[in-house]
Amino acid sequence: MKFAKGHGTENDFVIVEGTEPLPPEKVVALCDRRAGIGADGVLRVIRAGDLLASGEIDELAPGINTDDWFMDYRNADGSVAEMCGNGTRVFAHWVRSRGLVNTDTFTVGTRAGAKQVTVHSFNETEAEVSVEMGPAQVLGVSTASMAGESFAGLGVDMGNPHLAAVIPGLTAEDLAAKRLEQPVFDTDFFPAGVNVELVTPLHDGVIHMRVFERGSGETRSCGTGTVAAACAALADASHTTGRVRVVVPGGEVQVEITEDGSTLTGPSRIVATGETSL
Amino acid sequence: MKFAKGHGTENDFVIVEGTEPLPPEKVVALCDRRAGIGADGVLRVIRAGDLLASGEIDELAPGINTDDWFMDYRNADGSVAEMCGNGTRVFAHWVRSRGLVNTDTFTVGTRAGAKQVTVHSFNETEAEVSVEMGPAQVLGVSTASMAGESFAGLGVDMGNPHLAAVIPGLTAEDLAAKRLEQPVFDTDFFPAGVNVELVTPLHDGVIHMRVFERGSGETRSCGTGTVAAACAALADASHTTGRVRVVVPGGEVQVEITEDGSTLTGPSRIVATGETSL
Repeated sequence: MKFAKGHGTENDFVIVEGTEPLPPEKVVALCDRRAGIGADGVLRVIRAGDLLASGEIDELAPGINTDDWFMDYRNADGSVAEMCGNGTRVFAHWVRSRGLVNTDTFTVGTRAGAKQVTVHSFNETEAEVSVEMGPAQVLGVSTASMAGESFAGLGVDMGNPHLAAVIPGLTAEDLAAKRLEQPVFDTDFFPAGVNVELVTPLHDGVIHMRVFERGSGETRSCGTGTVAAACAALADASHTTGRVRVVVPGGEVQVEITEDGSTLTGPSRIVATGETSL
Repeated sequence: MKFAKGHGTENDFVIVEGTEPLPPEKVVALCDRRAGIGADGVLRVIRAGDLLASGEIDELAPGINTDDWFMDYRNADGSVAEMCGNGTRVFAHWVRSRGLVNTDTFTVGTRAGAKQVTVHSFNETEAEVSVEMGPAQVLGVSTASMAGESFAGLGVDMGNPHLAAVIPGLTAEDLAAKRLEQPVFDTDFFPAGVNVELVTPLHDGVIHMRVFERGSGETRSCGTGTVAAACAALADASHTTGRVRVVVPGGEVQVEITEDGSTLTGPSRIVATGETSL
């Protein structure tokens, strides 16, 4: 089977094309970081109509046409995921740079609906891509604690739950020195668990963020988390809309929050292509 | 650049061929598990004579001929390593299965000298390989503690230092439940640090082992560690020579200890081949 490996701010993926079924055990084998190729997840590239025809999805969400490319996203444990912001950039880079689409702006089908993407620049290995991430829904203020330290944050629903805590006076160096571990949070407020972002206050349009993802622990980057963090940092600075550069351990992205939506712009890298016997 | 990825009992490697220089920063990029391909190290495949001609080594150790294949091993941090038992199996699998050698027994050049290998069976993706590992030199008994628990073990020099602790009554389940962390050891006995193996007593020719490697932490497998563990388990059963099956988290190998040497036999897997822009 042919594959590629790429990443968006060090959230990394194995990319496979085609209509051949991709059973969970194959995803697990591909994503195994020692015995396999290694990745956070698999991006399967398939026409929306072909995925529908295979019976793997029941219907196409509004805005997805049968000839759109569909990001059939799989977690490293083999389960299906709705959506992945960083993965969508890499997916868009792949289909654009390999000539599967011939326009810079197009629709990517996902289980969370149609996502509009714009490929600003690309070559075989590098690209800069924007993804429409939908509205950042503010849930209100909640508190949590981590490593014995308590903090208040803004609950934000991005399709998945976030608690983005802008910590007064926190510098990038302070943030880098923090110990991130399983947070204690309000389970009434977040009954399905929560992704926690620790965020520096907005300064010259820039924030620094680290994230502890529900079910994964600390990661190098989290697409929806960067939008939640930008939303919280803007709110902390008494804004509801604006543009924010978000520096994460795996790189840097730009977030734009508008009245009715959000856009995540950032890099994609394709580092290898080949064939695997897995 | 062309590459392959393979592993020996889940100690994993990027394989590259050729005389083109491989600077440390390229090794780091290839081994990066998020932004690169990801591996514990790089196996560079080059003729011993070509490596000598490049000035990267000063001389060929006794038993290495200029037309032997040399395993130019690099750690994930870009540094040069003398030798890697699990890597040697994958290296031998690669050169045999890709037709770079046409015999089952041959010499692999390493910075730790000439290593005799035997490829017992192979195809493109799987092989079973024996590597002569040299004598297991017993240094004597020492003690250490880990996670608050003290134990006695056998100091074994395999070119690198080991403390292999056979723990009386320890079952495979007990071993799996142990918390492995940085050991406290006798720095007079092991001035350059030590790799620590926790080992079940020999039972029906089988031992179970987990290893905490100097500088790396717990790993899925350690070639020299399995030989040290077999040596300690044989000694614990009042033998100085013998054959032992060693079960590690990453799989299973066979160790034979003789009067003047040792042989490590185990699997190799090649899981992917391709090209990388790194």
